[in-house]
Amino acid sequence: MTKIIPVILSGGAGSRLWPLSKQAAPKQLLPLITNQTMVQETAARFQGPEFADPVFVCNALHMQAIDKQMRQMNQTVGAFIVEPVARNTAPCAVIAACHALVQDDEALVLLVPADHHVKRPADFRAAIMRAVPAAQQGRLVTFGIEPDGPEIGYGYIARGKALYDGAYEVDAFREKPDLETAKSYLAAGGFAWNGGIFLFAPETFIQESEAHAGDIARQAKKAYAAVKPEGNVYYLDKDLFGLCPSESIDYAVMEHTEKAAVVPCDIGWNDIGSFTALQAARAEINSDDQGNAVSSNVMLESVSNSLVQTDSLPISVIGLSDVAVIVHEGEVMVVSLDQAQSVKNIVNRLKETGDTDRL
Amino acid sequence: MTKIIPVILSGGAGSRLWPLSKQAAPKQLLPLITNQTMVQETAARFQGPEFADPVFVCNALHMQAIDKQMRQMNQTVGAFIVEPVARNTAPCAVIAACHALVQDDEALVLLVPADHHVKRPADFRAAIMRAVPAAQQGRLVTFGIEPDGPEIGYGYIARGKALYDGAYEVDAFREKPDLETAKSYLAAGGFAWNGGIFLFAPETFIQESEAHAGDIARQAKKAYAAVKPEGNVYYLDKDLFGLCPSESIDYAVMEHTEKAAVVPCDIGWNDIGSFTALQAARAEINSDDQGNAVSSNVMLESVSNSLVQTDSLPISVIGLSDVAVIVHEGEVMVVSLDQAQSVKNIVNRLKETGDTDRL
Repeated sequence: MTKIIPVILSGGAGSRLWPLSKQAAPKQLLPLITNQTMVQETAARFQGPEFADPVFVCNALHMQAIDKQMRQMNQTVGAFIVEPVARNTAPCAVIAACHALVQDDEALVLLVPADHHVKRPADFRAAIMRAVPAAQQGRLVTFGIEPDGPEIGYGYIARGKALYDGAYEVDAFREKPDLETAKSYLAAGGFAWNGGIFLFAPETFIQESEAHAGDIARQAKKAYAAVKPEGNVYYLDKDLFGLCPSESIDYAVMEHTEKAAVVPCDIGWNDIGSFTALQAARAEINSDDQGNAVSSNVMLESVSNSLVQTDSLPISVIGLSDVAVIVHEGEVMVVSLDQAQSVKNIVNRLKETGDTDRL
Repeated sequence: MTKIIPVILSGGAGSRLWPLSKQAAPKQLLPLITNQTMVQETAARFQGPEFADPVFVCNALHMQAIDKQMRQMNQTVGAFIVEPVARNTAPCAVIAACHALVQDDEALVLLVPADHHVKRPADFRAAIMRAVPAAQQGRLVTFGIEPDGPEIGYGYIARGKALYDGAYEVDAFREKPDLETAKSYLAAGGFAWNGGIFLFAPETFIQESEAHAGDIARQAKKAYAAVKPEGNVYYLDKDLFGLCPSESIDYAVMEHTEKAAVVPCDIGWNDIGSFTALQAARAEINSDDQGNAVSSNVMLESVSNSLVQTDSLPISVIGLSDVAVIVHEGEVMVVSLDQAQSVKNIVNRLKETGDTDRL
């Protein structure tokens, strides 16, 4: 049976959830939605005979925490591939493909972000299984998330003709749209969100990256070839890996290849990309009568649809709706959920003023 | 020259500003508006040859702090009258009158709360001087604060015929009105807010309290007579003082006496009775372009007309208007200023759950 190697991209900084997510302990290392951390949730989705042990691509700063979290759930780790610098997803994907080829040249690579929430993991696994034949036929398969509204924060995938039941050619990748355009996509049908999840045969991916992103393919292969593993840890050389152009897999490869395919799926996906998304995911699992998701040590009066969470000082909130109030690791953040994207402005100000120890 | 003895009522708990104001360090002991504490601001208003050293009526818990704050401003204290239990303002007023009679039987008593802000203290002193003849003629003078809007949180005083220029008989005291009634008062003219500030000759006040609040007068006089001063500290006996009915000076005496007078004044008065009032007073003195009053260690994005203040953890606020965000003594409070009156609900919940150490 063809094995699927989950390659869990765990290098993100998650600054859109600052101060809940900080550089030393970003989003993927935290139990944001359930009592499992996001990497634990992610790894747990891929347990079963069809999956090999997961490979983590991560920052050296976070490797030990991931290792510890995997031990907590008795999950063996296939490998840690340690990025000395962040180079976006395309170089990681090439390196993941190189690594898979060495491990098992018949395996498929499932590239997944470490910090997404999936409400229906069984449906996700079924979608992966639907994608396997396409990947085996030489397709780079992307998973199209069934939209639940005209979201402007994601790229969209327009499906083309069917390859077989449940898998389609990709007609086009569309950048994050404005609201009107997003509405037109939903009205037209056949569009899905690009969730940044991919299944492919490693050889196919390497060929396509060589064809469409030669610099990245060449430099990433060189970086992987130079690695001397220490146990299951693969430290990439800073100079070699650092020379890779920093590009996303979509921009570098998927938008150019003729071999893209899409498997639509409706799996309760949430990228927890903002306090708004976090509030929604948390409230869906456990909320009070007013739709609030709260931690212990919180008192509310006339508060609705909010997220109120503390790791230390007690919080009282009165008379507000649709806000997040977060006390975490010595910081207090109060944010209107309709302006959650401005968290990045605060993060940028801290960078500008050199207050990087607070990030 | 007749001396005026400022008797500064410093026994309040200030729970409407919790957690900024706590039992151990309530509102009057804090530098809420300027870099002076509220009792310091209050005492500073009454420096000059016409005033005797101030007398503080306070809780034993706060006496040392007041003493220290007076030393900081080189203010000698006439006396501390220490309440073993809180009995509202009427018993205090009788005791203040008894004390004044002993000290200087020609002095007048100026009864003032310790926790009000006055923007124009010189205008306040001028109003006090306008009130002196009335008090000397045997009137219990109350100061009528010129309304700057149809406020429903204060009682109103309707003036009667003039006693002399700037002093009037009282036509009626009116309870806190609803909005329509408050608007009608402003439209009619001749109404002022009852600020809870009084000037009287001690003998007159004792007579009038004997006439209209006999229990209070009798019991308070007994409590004062039993005191054995330690230096300038007068500890009231718990049993004797505790037997006084707990009533306000308005309810017990002013609303019944024929001798009430009112001196209207426009002095920039604010009782700092809620986070709404505190935000307004603070922003008037020092605000950013968006009308926010902030302490150091605060970052704002798209925030207006708010109060954001911390004694410890840094605060970030995004996308909110008309809120107070307070981090104080281990508590975090986030409150919409239009619902600031609900702070008392949080305080009551803490009382009910026995979390009194947090109050």
